[in-house]
This record gives sequence, structure tokens and C-alpha cells, in this order.
Amino acid sequence: MKTSEMKVGVTIAKIGILTCSDRASQGVYEDISGQAIIATLKEYLVTDWEAAYRLVPDDQASIEGALRQLADDEGCCLIVTTGGTGPAPRDVTPEATEAVCEKMLPGFGEQMRSVSLQYVPTAILSRQTAGIRGRTLIINLPGKPKSIRQCLDAIFPAVPYCLDLIDAAYLETDASVMKVFRP
Amino acid sequence: MKTSEMKVGVTIAKIGILTCSDRASQGVYEDISGQAIIATLKEYLVTDWEAAYRLVPDDQASIEGALRQLADDEGCCLIVTTGGTGPAPRDVTPEATEAVCEKMLPGFGEQMRSVSLQYVPTAILSRQTAGIRGRTLIINLPGKPKSIRQCLDAIFPAVPYCLDLIDAAYLETDASVMKVFRP
Amino acid sequence: MKTSEMKVGVTIAKIGILTCSDRASQGVYEDISGQAIIATLKEYLVTDWEAAYRLVPDDQASIEGALRQLADDEGCCLIVTTGGTGPAPRDVTPEATEAVCEKMLPGFGEQMRSVSLQYVPTAILSRQTAGIRGRTLIINLPGKPKSIRQCLDAIFPAVPYCLDLIDAAYLETDASVMKVFRP
Repeated sequence: MKTSEMKVGVTIAKIGILTCSDRASQGVYEDISGQAIIATLKEYLVTDWEAAYRLVPDDQASIEGALRQLADDEGCCLIVTTGGTGPAPRDVTPEATEAVCEKMLPGFGEQMRSVSLQYVPTAILSRQTAGIRGRTLIINLPGKPKSIRQCLDAIFPAVPYCLDLIDAAYLETDASVMKVFRP
Repeated sequence: MKTSEMKVGVTIAKIGILTCSDRASQGVYEDISGQAIIATLKEYLVTDWEAAYRLVPDDQASIEGALRQLADDEGCCLIVTTGGTGPAPRDVTPEATEAVCEKMLPGFGEQMRSVSLQYVPTAILSRQTAGIRGRTLIINLPGKPKSIRQCLDAIFPAVPYCLDLIDAAYLETDASVMKVFRP
Repeated sequence: MKTSEMKVGVTIAKIGILTCSDRASQGVYEDISGQAIIATLKEYLVTDWEAAYRLVPDDQASIEGALRQLADDEGCCLIVTTGGTGPAPRDVTPEATEAVCEKMLPGFGEQMRSVSLQYVPTAILSRQTAGIRGRTLIINLPGKPKSIRQCLDAIFPAVPYCLDLIDAAYLETDASVMKVFRP
């Protein structure tokens, strides 16, 4: 039995959901995207897990603080952000992500943009990326609720193996909904 | 009526065309690529606009200076560069672009390389990128005249919405030539 | 006759093969990937060349040292690395590559990930890149022996022209095995 499998027996995998939005954090509208991430992960995963949900304004220090707290204090194996990935002055989620990560994984952003391009030509405006902080994988998703499922479907097949490689948590999925790949 | 639409009424959108080429700047050959950019934009746009054209050698300080001048003094909403994106020692346009931008947009380079790859396998050698400086979007195109139209066709559908997001200018196109997308 | 063609007449092109692997460098297993690179290049190239082979642990200083030595002392026109491109803490080959290069060529990584994605969804976890140090092109390949040929087939058509542009060496291939492109 692998170390990562033993851990699953004693602790429940925690996944951070971080919504970055000035308006949602002011209560101007409901955070549909954050809820869509949780709903999608519930469909995917058969491993027991719990969500650690945070909602912050589009402010780099606030986003960095939330990422550090979710990674270091909450011990999340995975953090999925939504919002703040565009070209507007207040869009700083990729900058905050890069600031707290030791390693960047450009393939996630490339693949999500490539898939989103099948739907909208403005997909090239998204600066979403992914990176590793210690034993936590951080992935940026765009803010638009419609893109959440498209992006997660595109990259999640690689997520559990990535978590294995950084000794984060051993995640198993319902293969009829999300087929993951471990080489 | 939106602020950006009102602005179009009083000022004409200015677009910078910056050719980076040692030989063209020395008069060794004509700048066909810069002219091709202007001709293509004339076909695309129905909004009134004027070109601010510059021709500089492949020197990083000169390119940075021209980009700053076109963005800050001329108030260009968009700057399109051509040349200096390859691997040769004198190719420094992407470095100059990154040096003057607050935000990089990697999706532009990915998409242009992906489209150019359909024509030539050496497309992977191009380091072209895009970024935001204040209210200006800067986009690198390769130097080869043939690639100008291919690259502009590939990324321009996303350009007007990007300019909306940075409050730069409201551009409208002839949809029979260039169909843009605003979500 | 071009300068680069004359050089081939008097010196033999040298190509560095650098395997980055803790286990292979400890003798735990054989370096199959390094051997696969050499075998593939032998099939591709009709130009006379010799291999400069190095095997180092997954340690950034060791990788940087080997890259510098192969580029500056051995005068390699091309260095192909294998291993250390994933998200694990000991995977630092892209960081070492970036540290010794003046220019990065993101198109190589994009294209290799794109091709590998046709085989495995975990291709997005690879951080492989390429860059220029002086007159040397450095390309990262993944560590998995199976990916070596897929990746080299995907990017090698652009390699000889890149070496022309940095005045490194004039390489010719057997067009029935590897068709290169010079614009």
C-alpha cells in the first residue's frame, strides 16, 4: 500500500474553491461559478472529500493570502480558482498564483485555452495557468460559469496523477463521468 | 451609450504599426510587412481610425522607446509589431514587449503559432507574444509578409473585446471580412 | 558557400545528450531515454556528427553545470535533455534550462505537449521547454522512453533552420526519415 493511499484512510482530502470577484464578494451577484466547481467535483469524485470555500475581491494580496491559507493551513491537495484571469486591470489571479507557486505548469493554461477556443475566439484573452505550492496543485479557471465544466473536463484527467507526483492525496473518480489517467 | 462609444465620437482610434527590422530601417529593403498590416486593418475596420507608423532597428531600447511613445504619447488603443520574434541574437521584440507591459497574454502567441504550424513547421521558432500596457494592447506579428494576414485573421476576432475590457477604444469591423466576437 | 556550410567541412557537429535522473545516475536503472535520443538522431542525420553524452542527478546546479559545459566547452550546436520535466519536487530541468538560456522558445514546449496529448492526457503535466544559449539550442524532452520519438518527430523539422539562425551548425537529414524545413 502506498503512503498516499494510507493517508486517504485517516484524513479526508480537502479541495479549495476560491472565487475571485469584486462583485460577488460585495454581494452584487451570487457566486455561480464557485458553486459550479463544487457541483462538478461532486460528480467526478468517489473519494471522500470536503470543500474549503473562499470568496475574495479581485485584489492580489487577498488572493495570495487565501491561496496560502488554503494550501498551508487547510492542507488542500488541490485549489481551483475562478475569476480574474482576463486582461482587465483588476484581473490578477494568474499573478497571485504565480507569486505563491514554486513551479508553474503551462500545459494547463494551453489546454484550457485550446478547448475554450472551440466555443469562443475570445478564449485567447484568458491568462489562466496552474502551479504547484508544496503539496498543493493550484488551477485557475475563468470566471464565466459556462466555461467551468468545459475547462474542468479538459484538464481533470491529468489531475489525480499530478497529485500523486507531489504526494498530495490519492483521488479516485467515477469513470463513467470522469476517466482519469495514471501512466 | 457607453463611455467607450462616446469617445469614438470625439476622437479617432489610433493604431500603432511598429516594424522592427535592421535592414528595413537602413533602407536595404522596403517594409512590406508594415504595409501589409495597415492594408489588412483597412479591410477589417469600419470604425474611423488612423495609423501611427514607426520603423526601428532590431534594438531593444529603440523598440521599447517606440512602444512607450505609441502607447503613452500617441494614445494608441492597439499596437501591432512586425519582425524580431525569431531565435536570432538580434530578435528582441518579445523581450521589449514584455519589458513595457504590465500583463502578458500568452494565448495570442499560442494561437498564432498554432495557426502558422498549419503552413510551416518552423512556426515553433516564433516567440511572438502580446500584452497590455495601460489602455493599449500590444501584439507581436512575425516579420514574414506572408504570415501577417494568417496571424491577424487568427487573433483579430478577440481584439475588439480585449480593447473594451481595458477601456481602450470601441472598434467595429466589416463582418463580411472579419467577424469579431463580444461575449 | 555559406559560413555555416564551410564550418561543417572542418569540424564535426557535436550534439549534447543530457539525461537528468536520480535513479539512472545512481545506476538503479539503465538510461534508455538517452540511448533512444542518440538512436533517433542517428536515423535522422546524414551530416557527420558526434554525441557528447552526460548523465546527472535531478539537481539544478548539476544540470546547469552540464548544460554550460556542453554548450561552452564542448561547443555543441544542440543539446537534448531527457527527464526532470514533471511537477515533482525533484523535477527541475526546465528551471535549469531557463537559468542558462538568453532566449526561451515557448513554441517547442507547446508543440510537444500538443502532440503528446494525442497519446496521454497527462501530457499537460510536462513543463518541457527550449531555449538558446549563445550558439546552442537546448531542448527538453520528457523522461519516458516512449515519448522521446514522438517529441523529436514533432519538433525536429524546425531544428536545422533554428541552428542556421543562431549560426550553430548546418545539419542535413535523410528526408525519407525526417523532412526538415528551411523557409
